[in-house]
Amino acid sequence: MSEIRQNLVTREWVIIATERAKRPFDFKQEKIQSNHTFLKDCPFCPGNEHLTPPEILRVNLENNNRWSLRVIPNKSKILTDKEKLIRSFKGINRCVSGIGIQRILIESSLHNMTIALLPVNHVESIIRLYKEQYNEIKKDQRIEHITIFKNHGIEAGRKIEHPHSQIIGLPIVPFHIWERMDTAKCYYIDNLECVYCRSLQEELSDGSRIIYETDHFVSFIPYGARSPFHIWLFPKRHSTSFGDINNIEIKDLAICLKITLAKIYHGLGNPDYNYMIQSCPVDHEKVDFFHWYISIIPRLTKTAGFELGSGMYINISLPEKSGEFLRKIEVSE
Amino acid sequence: MSEIRQNLVTREWVIIATERAKRPFDFKQEKIQSNHTFLKDCPFCPGNEHLTPPEILRVNLENNNRWSLRVIPNKSKILTDKEKLIRSFKGINRCVSGIGIQRILIESSLHNMTIALLPVNHVESIIRLYKEQYNEIKKDQRIEHITIFKNHGIEAGRKIEHPHSQIIGLPIVPFHIWERMDTAKCYYIDNLECVYCRSLQEELSDGSRIIYETDHFVSFIPYGARSPFHIWLFPKRHSTSFGDINNIEIKDLAICLKITLAKIYHGLGNPDYNYMIQSCPVDHEKVDFFHWYISIIPRLTKTAGFELGSGMYINISLPEKSGEFLRKIEVSE
Repeated sequence: MSEIRQNLVTREWVIIATERAKRPFDFKQEKIQSNHTFLKDCPFCPGNEHLTPPEILRVNLENNNRWSLRVIPNKSKILTDKEKLIRSFKGINRCVSGIGIQRILIESSLHNMTIALLPVNHVESIIRLYKEQYNEIKKDQRIEHITIFKNHGIEAGRKIEHPHSQIIGLPIVPFHIWERMDTAKCYYIDNLECVYCRSLQEELSDGSRIIYETDHFVSFIPYGARSPFHIWLFPKRHSTSFGDINNIEIKDLAICLKITLAKIYHGLGNPDYNYMIQSCPVDHEKVDFFHWYISIIPRLTKTAGFELGSGMYINISLPEKSGEFLRKIEVSE
Repeated sequence: MSEIRQNLVTREWVIIATERAKRPFDFKQEKIQSNHTFLKDCPFCPGNEHLTPPEILRVNLENNNRWSLRVIPNKSKILTDKEKLIRSFKGINRCVSGIGIQRILIESSLHNMTIALLPVNHVESIIRLYKEQYNEIKKDQRIEHITIFKNHGIEAGRKIEHPHSQIIGLPIVPFHIWERMDTAKCYYIDNLECVYCRSLQEELSDGSRIIYETDHFVSFIPYGARSPFHIWLFPKRHSTSFGDINNIEIKDLAICLKITLAKIYHGLGNPDYNYMIQSCPVDHEKVDFFHWYISIIPRLTKTAGFELGSGMYINISLPEKSGEFLRKIEVSE
C-alpha cells in the first residue's frame, strides 16, 4: 500500500507510490551537453561581450586573459531599478510597480560546461559571487526578497544554453514565502526549536535518505519529497539568511553542491533541473525560526491536473531508494 | 513598466510583464487531435472494455448499442479503498496509509473527441456524472477531500490519449487547500463577505477580462492571472461545494464550459491544458467563506527556478488582452 507522508517543513502531504514506484535507474536519461566550447551567436560566449549590457564585474581564476565568470544585468529584464516604488489600489485590486533588480551570473566561459563538471574552486567562486550579489542587492531599500536560482535544460525553463544563474531582487515578499515563514514560526512556537534544524537531525540519525555530508552541509532526499530525486541541501549551522554564509562554509558548500550535482549528472544521465537558494525576506534576518537552504529539483516528471488542483504530489519513487542510489554513485571532487 | 498584481483570492503576487508581453495570437499552437475515432490498442476505446476493471456505470445518450460515457475504477491505482485508514508516526514524521478512491470518467466512445467539440447535452452528462461521483465518494467516512480534474495533452501530464477525466478521493486535506481556506476565512472575518463573490462582482463590473457569461456562470481571466490564459470559471450563486450544484446549473455550466474550451480550442490551436474543479473539504460544506469554482490552465509556458523558488509567477501576457481575445472568438453551442 502507498504511504501518504507529510513533509514537516512545508506541511505538505505527498503520496509515495510505494508499490508502484519506479526503480532509481528507470529515471536515467541521456541528455547530451553541447559539444561546443564556443558558439558564434551565443551572447554569453567570450568575444560576444558586446551582446550583453555592460558587465558589473568579472573574475579570472586562471591567470590568463580569459574571464572565468561574469556578472551582468539581465538584458530582457521584466523589472526595472530605474523608477520609484509605487503601491496602488484599483478598487479591491492591489498593484505594485514593477521595480526590481535582475542579474545574471555567467558561470563559465565555456559554452558546454556545467557545475557538475567544474573544479571545486570554480564552484566556490560562483557561491562567493552569489553571496556578494545578495548582500549588495539587499542594500536597496526597495528590495524585500531575493531569489537566486538556476535553470539547467529546456524542461527546467532555460532560455539560453550557456551555463548561468539568475539573481532577482523583488519589491514584495511572495505569498508563498510568507506561508513558509508562518509554518516555521508555528513549529517554533510549539516546539521551541527550528523545524529545519530538527528535520536535519532526524535525517542524519535515520541516514537512509542522505546523499552527501561535508563538515558544514548535508544533501538529502526529504522523507516527504514531492517528486523523484527532489533534493534539499541544508547548512548545519542554524542561519536565517544566505547572505550570512562565511568563507569556510562557502568552500565547504562548493564541495557539497558540486558532488551532489555530479552524482545527479552521472547517476541520472544529466537530467534537466532547477536549483534555488531559499532565504528569508531581507528584513527578517534576525528571526530564530527560519533556516536558509538549497532545493535541487530534477525535472523527471510532469505536473498534471491532480497536482495543480490539490497542491498535493504523487511521487513515483521511494526517497530511501533514491537516497541510497545517489549516495552510492562515486564521483570525485 | 511591469505591474506586480495581487490575486485577491489566493493572495499570490504575479509579475505582469506589461511592456514585454506577447500578443494573444503569439501563443497560438497547432496541436493536432488524433484522426482515429477508434484505436485497436486503446484501453478506453469501445470493444476493449475487457482491458479496464469492471465498469461502475455507463451512459448511452444516443439510443443505440454504443455507450457514450463510462465510469471505471482507475486500474493503475496508487490508492486503495480496500484497507483501513491508519495514521502513524515515525519519530517526528507523520504518515497516513494510502487509502483513497480513484475513478476515471471516459468522456466519449470516440478516441479523437474533445469537450470543445462535444454537443452541449453530452457535456451536461459529463458534469452530472462528476456530481454523482462526488456525492457518492464523499459518503465514505475515510474520505476528506475530492479532486476532479482533466489532463488534456502530453504537456498537461496526460498518459492515455482517449478523452477522460479523473476523480480522486483523499483521506487527508492537502495543505494547499487548508491555506486557500484560511485565506478566504481571513477575508471573510475582515470584510463579512465571500472573497470569491466579491472578486466575481469586480470582474463583472470591470468587464475587460470576461470571456463568457451565462445565466449562472462566468468564465474570466483573473486580474492577477499567474500564467497566460489562466482561466477561472465561477458559479454566480454562492456555494461552497461542487456537490451542491443543481440541475439548472448543470445545464448552464455545460454551455459555459463547452464554449470556454471551444474558444481556447479554436483561438489558441487546441493547446494542452488542465482543468480542475476546486471544492471545499467534504466536512466543510456549511462554511460561509469558501466558494467552489473551476480553474482551466492552458500549458503554454514552462515553470522555471524563479517560480519554483519564490512561488511567484511571471506572466508574459496581459489578462485584459487575453480576455478580449477569447471573448471575441466566435463559437457556437
